[in-house]
Amino acid sequence: MAFDPSTLSYNEAGLLPAVAQDAKTGEVLMLAWMNAEAVARTLETGRVTYWSRSRRAFWVKGETSGHVQTLVEMRIDCDRDALLVLVNQVGPACHTNRRSCFFTGVQGGEEVVLSEPME
Amino acid sequence: MAFDPSTLSYNEAGLLPAVAQDAKTGEVLMLAWMNAEAVARTLETGRVTYWSRSRRAFWVKGETSGHVQTLVEMRIDCDRDALLVLVNQVGPACHTNRRSCFFTGVQGGEEVVLSEPME
Repeated sequence: MAFDPSTLSYNEAGLLPAVAQDAKTGEVLMLAWMNAEAVARTLETGRVTYWSRSRRAFWVKGETSGHVQTLVEMRIDCDRDALLVLVNQVGPACHTNRRSCFFTGVQGGEEVVLSEPME
Repeated sequence: MAFDPSTLSYNEAGLLPAVAQDAKTGEVLMLAWMNAEAVARTLETGRVTYWSRSRRAFWVKGETSGHVQTLVEMRIDCDRDALLVLVNQVGPACHTNRRSCFFTGVQGGEEVVLSEPME
């Protein structure tokens, strides 16, 4: 069946969450948001493109930082209201210069920083 | 620093997205939603507990199906508005009886079913 981004379920702001996972290591890198046009652009260009809720603009990941995400495969969940994008990530995915945005763990009721910024 | 669920950033409905990842294989299993109380219950009980938006009730994963998720570690992202839960998953995570909810891939513009329901 041909894929049509308009058939996904978006929230009241026209967005759905997209989880980026390193296609090689399986590490979950980040969660950001896409609208239907961002989904279409990601598939067309192979460059993962989100919608920045703060800047209210398309966000081609790595466009300014160089830390691009190249799409390996997009996956849709059973409810069609969330996406998983398997990516090749150049450098850190996180704006803190860490590989993953999920660098804080909760261990024994305490927050623990699990990774340091990359060189 | 002691972790307090109220310090996370929730949306206007008091929810944030939580991504469940198989702690052993790294497979991304599902994305669902938690409110502050669901976060607290997950940590207290070690049983991953979401907020069901459709049923408007706490959803202890696997409570009726037996397909429980036992928490291995909760992680917080840099913006504190998304969670990653590393879990031990019994059986399928998806209500379609598949291991992962992300069983549909987009390949060459077509939707492709990547996995079949478990026995």
